[in-house]
Amino acid sequence: MLQEIAEQPEVLRRTIAAERGKVTKLGDFLRQKDIDVIVLVARGSSDNAALFGRYLLEVTTGIPVSLSAPSVFTLYNAKMKLKRALVIGVSQSGEGDDINLVLERAKEAGAFTLGITNEADSTMAKIADETLLIHAGREKSVAATKTYTGQMLHFYMLASAIGDQRLDFHKIPDFADQALELQPKVKHLVERYAFMENCVVVGRGMNYGNSYELALKLMETCYVIAERFSSADFFHGPLAIVERRFPVILFAPAGSTRQSSVDLLNRLHELHADCLTITNDAKISELSSRSLTMPGDIDEFLSPIPFIIPAQLFAAYLSEAKGLDPDAPRSLAKVTKTL
Amino acid sequence: MLQEIAEQPEVLRRTIAAERGKVTKLGDFLRQKDIDVIVLVARGSSDNAALFGRYLLEVTTGIPVSLSAPSVFTLYNAKMKLKRALVIGVSQSGEGDDINLVLERAKEAGAFTLGITNEADSTMAKIADETLLIHAGREKSVAATKTYTGQMLHFYMLASAIGDQRLDFHKIPDFADQALELQPKVKHLVERYAFMENCVVVGRGMNYGNSYELALKLMETCYVIAERFSSADFFHGPLAIVERRFPVILFAPAGSTRQSSVDLLNRLHELHADCLTITNDAKISELSSRSLTMPGDIDEFLSPIPFIIPAQLFAAYLSEAKGLDPDAPRSLAKVTKTL
Repeated sequence: MLQEIAEQPEVLRRTIAAERGKVTKLGDFLRQKDIDVIVLVARGSSDNAALFGRYLLEVTTGIPVSLSAPSVFTLYNAKMKLKRALVIGVSQSGEGDDINLVLERAKEAGAFTLGITNEADSTMAKIADETLLIHAGREKSVAATKTYTGQMLHFYMLASAIGDQRLDFHKIPDFADQALELQPKVKHLVERYAFMENCVVVGRGMNYGNSYELALKLMETCYVIAERFSSADFFHGPLAIVERRFPVILFAPAGSTRQSSVDLLNRLHELHADCLTITNDAKISELSSRSLTMPGDIDEFLSPIPFIIPAQLFAAYLSEAKGLDPDAPRSLAKVTKTL
Repeated sequence: MLQEIAEQPEVLRRTIAAERGKVTKLGDFLRQKDIDVIVLVARGSSDNAALFGRYLLEVTTGIPVSLSAPSVFTLYNAKMKLKRALVIGVSQSGEGDDINLVLERAKEAGAFTLGITNEADSTMAKIADETLLIHAGREKSVAATKTYTGQMLHFYMLASAIGDQRLDFHKIPDFADQALELQPKVKHLVERYAFMENCVVVGRGMNYGNSYELALKLMETCYVIAERFSSADFFHGPLAIVERRFPVILFAPAGSTRQSSVDLLNRLHELHADCLTITNDAKISELSSRSLTMPGDIDEFLSPIPFIIPAQLFAAYLSEAKGLDPDAPRSLAKVTKTL
């Protein structure tokens, strides 16, 4: 897992170089179609990447995005009306039966289908009208890292190609390099959390998917019972679980969500919670019990990939600090079958 | 809270009687429009009702549903393309600023807007093109119960009016009466869970929203750290947190999701987890450590309202068993402001 985390800047560079042209052409084609809705279909970490993609695509293209519930197709056999839909399957292996079944049904219903996968020869690549590849090499760790950020990168390229907003995604690999420099700091920091049994992970907007992803990594590799919320939803009820020293981990970049992070940190301070932030804002860092601080010039829209990297490192090192092996999570297999 | 739980069958009857005609007319109007996407916008318990609505509407109408992320509008000021959209706000009070802002922006973008609320004079009722009222009387408890099931009922009436599938929602109030008969059993059962500090709540398809709702109730009133998953997602990683005696609560009706519940229960049994099911299936009941059993003739599509009632009772009585007051959850207010 640590090795695959470290490979990310190169995977991102390789993926941009290999896929950029294809995505731009695809964008030109999709801009001419009259697309009314984008449906994203995924499970696990890929679903967390899709959760990020949802925000990015809605904000930059204005097209409403639905995160598909595969059971609507697989268990309830719904006949969906998808004539003016773009349906995007996201899967590391490209072998999730339920995801592929949704793509097949969507195609029959007249949707344009797209696959985002790490495996060029996968079933997904055969089904989808077009496939965007992550050039990550085989991912061996059960806990996905490099394919998660590779999937996110494809959403940047796609959003740039479909929408009118220019996204400087070519900067992301360098930001990822900078994020990896936090490695010694994270390794030291995890000692403090060796006996943490549960926590809440919070993110909002562009970093909402990251809160799900870190929570999943903590569950998979550290067996920490990790809840995930947006800072807005957290105020609607779940805040009641917070007591003195309760651990909260917050993705809190400068930008649109900054004020909401500051408000939450102030409230958590009153409740004597223990707050760890991943941030690039001095004030937020100051309001936190501990923080992992990234360079200030990372724009909020480009923050999700560099911000998840210290979080991935945190999960991997915490697993070791707890005497566990992040590459051998109990009860799990790499490809999960669900229908 | 207990009093408001008990009022639910009457609230449901009153709401059907008062609103049915209006919803049917609205359905005729909406069927003539060429709606490509339905957007649901809500927070807290209302968002859990929307999560149910999402499944019901997609399965019965075939129109893709997007659960709105309000921050796309409130923080990122996205200009959404909603010309062929039906946008539905769901709010007990009708005073959630972020929800109302989304409705306003959607209206400007050409969407048809609908409000589902308990307050006829609310800001939401003034903004929306049409309002469907829950006739629950004032809800005093911070933990929503009767407005949650009232909102769900409106999704039944709406789905029947827009789609081609006949839903026997008039049977639901009687099923709710039957659910309330479990009261003494639940009161006795909670003693076993007095020291439960965390748990996972699982539901799938029509009962997926219920898993979020019970988890929220347990967080709000019992301060239990309650995770919520679909049985499909639970296999993708989170299963690793389960160890011997780990408590899992499962909504497991007979019907389309039955096999997936049986598979999960078998796997949890191997891991020596402690499973409480809310079910109307003898086999599932047999596979569980404990179960709350409902009448077998409740069709899966009609199960979500009767199935949440024993869960609401469970949260209210467990709160008391833990020496807490379900009507005075710490850190929370009835109307939550977020932007």
